Amino acid sequence: MSNLIGNHYRVMVFGQSHAPSIGAVIEGLPAGFRPDWDAVRAFMARRAPGGRLATSRREADLPEILSGLNERGETCGAPLAMRIVNGDTKSQDYAKLRDVPRPGHADYPAYVKFGGANDIRGGGQFSGRLTAPLCFAGALAMQLLAREGIRVRAHIARIENAADAPLDPVNPDLDAISDGDLAVIDLQAAEAMRRAILEAKADCDSVGGEVECFATGVPAGLGDPMFDGVENRLARALFGIPAVRGVAFGAGFDACGMRGSAHNDAYRMRDGRVVTETNRHAGILGGITTGMPVHVRVAFKPTSSIAREQHSVSLSAGEDAVLAVRGRHDPCIVPRAVPVVEAVTAITLYDLILERSASPWN
Amino acid sequence: MSNLIGNHYRVMVFGQSHAPSIGAVIEGLPAGFRPDWDAVRAFMARRAPGGRLATSRREADLPEILSGLNERGETCGAPLAMRIVNGDTKSQDYAKLRDVPRPGHADYPAYVKFGGANDIRGGGQFSGRLTAPLCFAGALAMQLLAREGIRVRAHIARIENAADAPLDPVNPDLDAISDGDLAVIDLQAAEAMRRAILEAKADCDSVGGEVECFATGVPAGLGDPMFDGVENRLARALFGIPAVRGVAFGAGFDACGMRGSAHNDAYRMRDGRVVTETNRHAGILGGITTGMPVHVRVAFKPTSSIAREQHSVSLSAGEDAVLAVRGRHDPCIVPRAVPVVEAVTAITLYDLILERSASPWN
Amino acid sequence: MSNLIGNHYRVMVFGQSHAPSIGAVIEGLPAGFRPDWDAVRAFMARRAPGGRLATSRREADLPEILSGLNERGETCGAPLAMRIVNGDTKSQDYAKLRDVPRPGHADYPAYVKFGGANDIRGGGQFSGRLTAPLCFAGALAMQLLAREGIRVRAHIARIENAADAPLDPVNPDLDAISDGDLAVIDLQAAEAMRRAILEAKADCDSVGGEVECFATGVPAGLGDPMFDGVENRLARALFGIPAVRGVAFGAGFDACGMRGSAHNDAYRMRDGRVVTETNRHAGILGGITTGMPVHVRVAFKPTSSIAREQHSVSLSAGEDAVLAVRGRHDPCIVPRAVPVVEAVTAITLYDLILERSASPWN
Amino acid sequence: MSNLIGNHYRVMVFGQSHAPSIGAVIEGLPAGFRPDWDAVRAFMARRAPGGRLATSRREADLPEILSGLNERGETCGAPLAMRIVNGDTKSQDYAKLRDVPRPGHADYPAYVKFGGANDIRGGGQFSGRLTAPLCFAGALAMQLLAREGIRVRAHIARIENAADAPLDPVNPDLDAISDGDLAVIDLQAAEAMRRAILEAKADCDSVGGEVECFATGVPAGLGDPMFDGVENRLARALFGIPAVRGVAFGAGFDACGMRGSAHNDAYRMRDGRVVTETNRHAGILGGITTGMPVHVRVAFKPTSSIAREQHSVSLSAGEDAVLAVRGRHDPCIVPRAVPVVEAVTAITLYDLILERSASPWN
Repeated sequence: MSNLIGNHYRVMVFGQSHAPSIGAVIEGLPAGFRPDWDAVRAFMARRAPGGRLATSRREADLPEILSGLNERGETCGAPLAMRIVNGDTKSQDYAKLRDVPRPGHADYPAYVKFGGANDIRGGGQFSGRLTAPLCFAGALAMQLLAREGIRVRAHIARIENAADAPLDPVNPDLDAISDGDLAVIDLQAAEAMRRAILEAKADCDSVGGEVECFATGVPAGLGDPMFDGVENRLARALFGIPAVRGVAFGAGFDACGMRGSAHNDAYRMRDGRVVTETNRHAGILGGITTGMPVHVRVAFKPTSSIAREQHSVSLSAGEDAVLAVRGRHDPCIVPRAVPVVEAVTAITLYDLILERSASPWN
Repeated sequence: MSNLIGNHYRVMVFGQSHAPSIGAVIEGLPAGFRPDWDAVRAFMARRAPGGRLATSRREADLPEILSGLNERGETCGAPLAMRIVNGDTKSQDYAKLRDVPRPGHADYPAYVKFGGANDIRGGGQFSGRLTAPLCFAGALAMQLLAREGIRVRAHIARIENAADAPLDPVNPDLDAISDGDLAVIDLQAAEAMRRAILEAKADCDSVGGEVECFATGVPAGLGDPMFDGVENRLARALFGIPAVRGVAFGAGFDACGMRGSAHNDAYRMRDGRVVTETNRHAGILGGITTGMPVHVRVAFKPTSSIAREQHSVSLSAGEDAVLAVRGRHDPCIVPRAVPVVEAVTAITLYDLILERSASPWN
Repeated sequence: MSNLIGNHYRVMVFGQSHAPSIGAVIEGLPAGFRPDWDAVRAFMARRAPGGRLATSRREADLPEILSGLNERGETCGAPLAMRIVNGDTKSQDYAKLRDVPRPGHADYPAYVKFGGANDIRGGGQFSGRLTAPLCFAGALAMQLLAREGIRVRAHIARIENAADAPLDPVNPDLDAISDGDLAVIDLQAAEAMRRAILEAKADCDSVGGEVECFATGVPAGLGDPMFDGVENRLARALFGIPAVRGVAFGAGFDACGMRGSAHNDAYRMRDGRVVTETNRHAGILGGITTGMPVHVRVAFKPTSSIAREQHSVSLSAGEDAVLAVRGRHDPCIVPRAVPVVEAVTAITLYDLILERSASPWN
Repeated sequence: MSNLIGNHYRVMVFGQSHAPSIGAVIEGLPAGFRPDWDAVRAFMARRAPGGRLATSRREADLPEILSGLNERGETCGAPLAMRIVNGDTKSQDYAKLRDVPRPGHADYPAYVKFGGANDIRGGGQFSGRLTAPLCFAGALAMQLLAREGIRVRAHIARIENAADAPLDPVNPDLDAISDGDLAVIDLQAAEAMRRAILEAKADCDSVGGEVECFATGVPAGLGDPMFDGVENRLARALFGIPAVRGVAFGAGFDACGMRGSAHNDAYRMRDGRVVTETNRHAGILGGITTGMPVHVRVAFKPTSSIAREQHSVSLSAGEDAVLAVRGRHDPCIVPRAVPVVEAVTAITLYDLILERSASPWN
């Protein structure tokens, strides 16, 4: 299913921006697990709209559990289904877009694919709102990963030209990442990012950026050769987040300009454990984890919905047209994308943890 | 299956570098198809070892068909199975590696995962040799894509610091790419690349690089929302090629520094067809093709097997050790990776072509 | 996902008998399809509880659409999610069952599998109520199959020893099946069945029976060799209905006693079309449809929840115990299983119809 | 893939009766496993052709390992690929069948599906020969199941009207099954079966029969609710064996005529373990194993290829035709089907054993 991710921890997402509901059905939660719902809501709040840097759409985004718990409030082995009721929708904003597709958005290919029946309201199923159920599923995965000593945390590596301070990939100090509206280490960088976003907003424009995510405490031996390696799975999952244009590990595209002697990470014994001195391999070799922190970089394009006039076409008239997108949009989705990247990474890693148990060699 | 790629055009790869055989089983070939075997062999020859820039291992790499053809030599609806017999193996070269893992290679995580039973000879199942059956499957996919007017072609965008001339992503001139030992447009760039590789080789070192692949003639409407979009599938497949560290589309990581007004591609009507003026979206929006060329960038790290001494550990002694990798290795795998990127892209696109037919809206 | 059926028309079921909701998420509906909701409700009503022959639990079982429609009420390419709110639950009826498992029910293996966290109320996820969302999905599939000229209809072949009249498998008269509370051809048989059920009920007992389902208008060429044949898929799906103990095609187990000359169906040309004179092959050979009616038999065991005292064990005390099941249960689930068998068959066949389109040879 | 079975222990079968090879690729074998090859060959010999009761085709059917072992002969975590070279093929026997399809065989639907390109020689991919690689994979699974204390064994329950003695499903004495050419308990029944087969053969005819398979030592808690229960998986897998027309568990279709009080199996404590007094539930409730023996019945139709004249059609002429099938065929495939049923059952159970380990609740 194209809205399904995971082999053992399986998350099926449904909904459109202006449908009655969005939600998810989750298989693979261990039975007898009593989720920390406050932690789930707190995590989801990090993604929720609001604030100067984001869309003016307001959504409480409170999850309603439809099934999956027993009478004691524990997971019972049945799929956990949840939904979020959509409110504060202004569907009339989107009427014109059915004819004149927004550049950089899925309007046109969805029109072709679905023969004009696609739900254009609020971006339909392509809306960033669909990441709310992903955050729900990711918040549960994080609680289960914590039991295994695994922690997942991301920061904004840059927005436009404003770069955050780097984290040491061998021993990333995840606590140094701010819990504020911009998840960064360097608060001066945060100021520059904020400025970049507000300037773009003032220009009826938008900006892109990069999110960098780390997972620490990951045991060696997760992932499978060739097409089910950790990179394959994380990449497939992360490209499911709207606006992602690139996924890279460790040195990423910088590796193209490096020599082997500079890129290879030497092994060392430390306290009876095999470690690497550096971590350009991002904790993954041959698709399999090495026990070093997993380190993934995710490139986000600038929000495609911008208020300034753009060239487009009228599909009905078959001629060129001019479009000014109305509706409420984030001038930069990167700040709100941070918990989404964490959620998708956590879903993928918890899936791998379950899968490890299935390996005949464990 | 971790060695399986595709939903409709499905390729299952098997083998290890020094096993009796490597090979593939392919489902989804149309019945009644009579492959052009000369073209298959010519395509596979582009990946085969040999030449100054590559390993000195010699393999004829001739595919032997095990099943899948009828008495007239046409595909018959049964899986097409093929193998390549492994020859010229020097397994004794790899004895020490079982104890002292190569930095940057899968030796250590495979040792952990498989409890020491992994096949260490020639890299076992992690060897680049496993891309030969992928090229076989890709060569068949290309012949079938050609029937649909789709063409897939890649070039070396750069090796270390030597960059090829760019291709216009709106209308890439794929015929401009050289058929020589380095698939580039700019022959001076080829000379600089060759120099970078040979200098690294002389230094007992290796270099990385970037491959850029285009697919033209791709119809609008391929791919599915969220986790089965074209990016998700291509990324999952491309990370199956050994040494890939990043996959990005269109502007890729450069999009992080751009504004929406500069990144969005305006729509225009041209000859009754909807096109975009620019192609930073890489022919894909919302996971679905737009009809513009698909454009993917793939980052390759430098070959991890280098002849100079490196720090590692002795797994048996549990102490630090020094390693000098013997065996025959490419100082840069990028030249031979070009057809592999094409093959994996073709496999994924042909899978999407078959899938399109299954969509209820087609 | 264990609650998921189908490759192209994919139905994911969630819920427990006494959870807030039960429901389904459906992928693969053609975009632009405007379902006949009255027909959906009418179909679901055939399965709904009520009547002398069934449980006294009352459920309106009205489906609420959560997502998947555009502003015009058409399917839009996004997953169609629906739920049914559970009402009229008497959970206190089930308290003792957590300790003393019902013979013939999933209580005990679920206790083992889920470590005692399984939802015991009303049978939890093992409840027959979960077939309501299946009927929803099946009702939509039937409307889409009707466009292809395919019709799916089942009757009660027998209950205990009361057998319905047979249908001609070459040309089954599906209109002869009664729309009454017992889907039979022979109304005298219905009377005998009714008597068998009421006698069992009066004895605090239950009875089993057989449902026979036909699909007419199925084109030749659906299904795939070996593990994805029509039998494989139908069997996997039909065993998902609670209480099914056997699935057989055409002559079924009677074929064990037959000779080839009596079992083979001779081919004949009729009006330019290849047909068979008889249809013991059930419209399927080698896993692939022949164009003759598909004919499947499904064995249902007697309801395991019976009011009379039975031997069981106390899991907490680790000793033998006696159990009298309370709660409201059907003395025979076969009458209500008829539309469920139809629904599951329709889901599977519509999936095959979509899959056919994906075959490269079509 | 339609030739693939299993989620964790995955077996991909390839080949046609008269292709160069048939074979299988297996994923999921534990690394470091050193198979008992003599036992594999002995198991495969049970299925191999030969003897008075079978086809006169001779095949050594010796498996050749293509990949998957390390230098010590242990499984290494890479897929285990094997092939059997096809010999003793008489392809000219099948020329006419391309035009005049055999009643009861896949010739006609395969012709439709594959547009006439299907491999008609020896039944192509529909041939019973494809069960040889299944037996190879099953033999390995059995060795791994033995480590878990699980044993799988089948007998011929009946051929035509000759029935074997029943086995006690609570405590089946699997050692009582003969290792001779007919796997039965009652040697007089064997004589009657042999007579039935030879009489049919003398009449240029064939007979059907039933195979009954038991698995003992299966732990409680295997299998998943709804569509991934043990019945769903076994049924999907078993219908992959050519000529299977029905799959039933425990009382099977006899349950249709029973009352709940007679069908339910009472629980009892025995030596601190929960058991059932009887085993009509076949060791499976709600799709999940109970710890009692798994018990499945499989109906085989009579061989469709019979030497006597039958009515068919000429596809080229579009008119009725008469056919006498030549070639070498078993007058009854049931004797050779016994190890195949065991193999498919073992593959499915070992898959469940691996899957259990992946369950978050284990």
